[in-house]
Amino acid sequence: MTEAQRIEAFLSQFERVDAPYGPGDDAALVKRAGSNGECITTDAVVEGVHFTRETFSLEDIGHKALAVNLSDLAAMGATPSWAVCALGLPASFEGRELKALGRGMAALARVHGVTLVGGNITASPALTVTMTVAGNLGPRPLLRSGARVGDEVLVSGPLGLASAGFEVLTAGAAGFERLVQAQRRPVPHLAWASVAAGFASAGLDVSDGLLQDLGHIAKASGVGIGVSSDGLALHIELLKWAGSLESARSHALSGGEDYVLAVTVPRRRLAAFDRALSRAGFSAFSIGRVTSGAQVLLDGRRAPARRGFQHASAS
Amino acid sequence: MTEAQRIEAFLSQFERVDAPYGPGDDAALVKRAGSNGECITTDAVVEGVHFTRETFSLEDIGHKALAVNLSDLAAMGATPSWAVCALGLPASFEGRELKALGRGMAALARVHGVTLVGGNITASPALTVTMTVAGNLGPRPLLRSGARVGDEVLVSGPLGLASAGFEVLTAGAAGFERLVQAQRRPVPHLAWASVAAGFASAGLDVSDGLLQDLGHIAKASGVGIGVSSDGLALHIELLKWAGSLESARSHALSGGEDYVLAVTVPRRRLAAFDRALSRAGFSAFSIGRVTSGAQVLLDGRRAPARRGFQHASAS
Repeated sequence: MTEAQRIEAFLSQFERVDAPYGPGDDAALVKRAGSNGECITTDAVVEGVHFTRETFSLEDIGHKALAVNLSDLAAMGATPSWAVCALGLPASFEGRELKALGRGMAALARVHGVTLVGGNITASPALTVTMTVAGNLGPRPLLRSGARVGDEVLVSGPLGLASAGFEVLTAGAAGFERLVQAQRRPVPHLAWASVAAGFASAGLDVSDGLLQDLGHIAKASGVGIGVSSDGLALHIELLKWAGSLESARSHALSGGEDYVLAVTVPRRRLAAFDRALSRAGFSAFSIGRVTSGAQVLLDGRRAPARRGFQHASAS
Repeated sequence: MTEAQRIEAFLSQFERVDAPYGPGDDAALVKRAGSNGECITTDAVVEGVHFTRETFSLEDIGHKALAVNLSDLAAMGATPSWAVCALGLPASFEGRELKALGRGMAALARVHGVTLVGGNITASPALTVTMTVAGNLGPRPLLRSGARVGDEVLVSGPLGLASAGFEVLTAGAAGFERLVQAQRRPVPHLAWASVAAGFASAGLDVSDGLLQDLGHIAKASGVGIGVSSDGLALHIELLKWAGSLESARSHALSGGEDYVLAVTVPRRRLAAFDRALSRAGFSAFSIGRVTSGAQVLLDGRRAPARRGFQHASAS
């Protein structure tokens, strides 16, 4: 059963709710009188699925639990406001371990002005950190459904580092610090997203692999997307680890957990988008174009049917 | 380490936030322009800790995951609005099982007008349902800190049924349907709470045992509380299961998971409170009085030092 089928099975029991109030996109939208609305997302990291205690410090785990949620808010162009945290702790978990977990989370919360307003602690066989984070929407939320034929497709950074970092950690290899950090300490691209929200027609965060996630934009917008592998920025550490251009490209196209943003921007707005990004100290990497049709094509050919990144223990 | 010490260790890493914005009471309060504010709570149920698949149906689990969160909103006098649900699923979990889980949750959501606006599914070694639920506050939120000397202490229903139900299920005993239902299908006392919010000086939901939870009101309000065991309503099934008055009283005083509300009400408002409850078809059970001092006394003696209910697998 795919993730989408599992979600569908569960949601089939609930009354349908109309957008922009209800499930869809990267986070739920809740209307608010006198504002542009609030965006709510929830995500969990689970021991043995998303991390092991051997390869992640507790600070890393606290950071990552919040980061994956903040990335969902970035994907909507929202500004984070508050968070709640539900912890599932093994019986042996100690006070100093709770402090370390909190330290990693609190440091990231401070950077992005997120206030932890509540939480819960329960026993659990596997260390589990489930967060729910809210953000305030700007005048134009970033949805998956707005892409139009001819729009440019851009990403906010190099791809494939986190999945290569997962391999590095699994192999116990030394070095490759940039790859390992991408896996342990993903950086939510919130500031980039706040610029992009003013220009993009659609967007999301790349958490399950670029080609798979672009498929969500294609489906929601009723368009095709042509990706040019020449546009990909391949980090030199990724090239070194992967050992070949082919393998590095495969990480960039199908690796997951990068939490890089992908947006579509109307071509007439590209120059202004580029200037706005530059002023903020950011850049974007153009990787393709929105097309007619309904498929994601890679270099003009149907993208390989392989699935995006699946967590090793979760598949 | 107690639950309070664990929470303190984790929160020590975060910047303190001022009430009414931040951790405290049964749910977090978030200020909202043009309203009385929003109340956010998060709570999880975990396989092997809060339920087993042998003694709970999946519908029961879906119901209980939402019910325990709704009880936290009831404890604040809030009206539930939206929810998000993060599921941790064992690899073998099937579509029909997801539907059963959703069915139990959706039925309760419908009763209380809760809209499921989003969620997440991840792999997990133990079935885990973590919900975050929001509610709108009335003009007077129910806090733990408002109790004054002389106030009457009342509860919204009979106590001790759920912990007795846990024993019934563990023993595999037949019958005792009311006790088993209290354990599997707790009923959040939202409507009772909405009446009580207009009269009570303080309140909470009894999730960890009456004496232990009244201690939270005593501490937050800087008062003592005198409980009279004569005021307790003991359900006949509880008396039958417990086998003695002593044992039944022990369940009622220290058993957990009842999700009955306890409130303190100024004596000059008692008659009006009683009339308002009656009009709504409810009743209240008077179990004691707010006193000076700082202790919870049972029949004039210091309440036994035993801790409140701890989940068997969680202790």
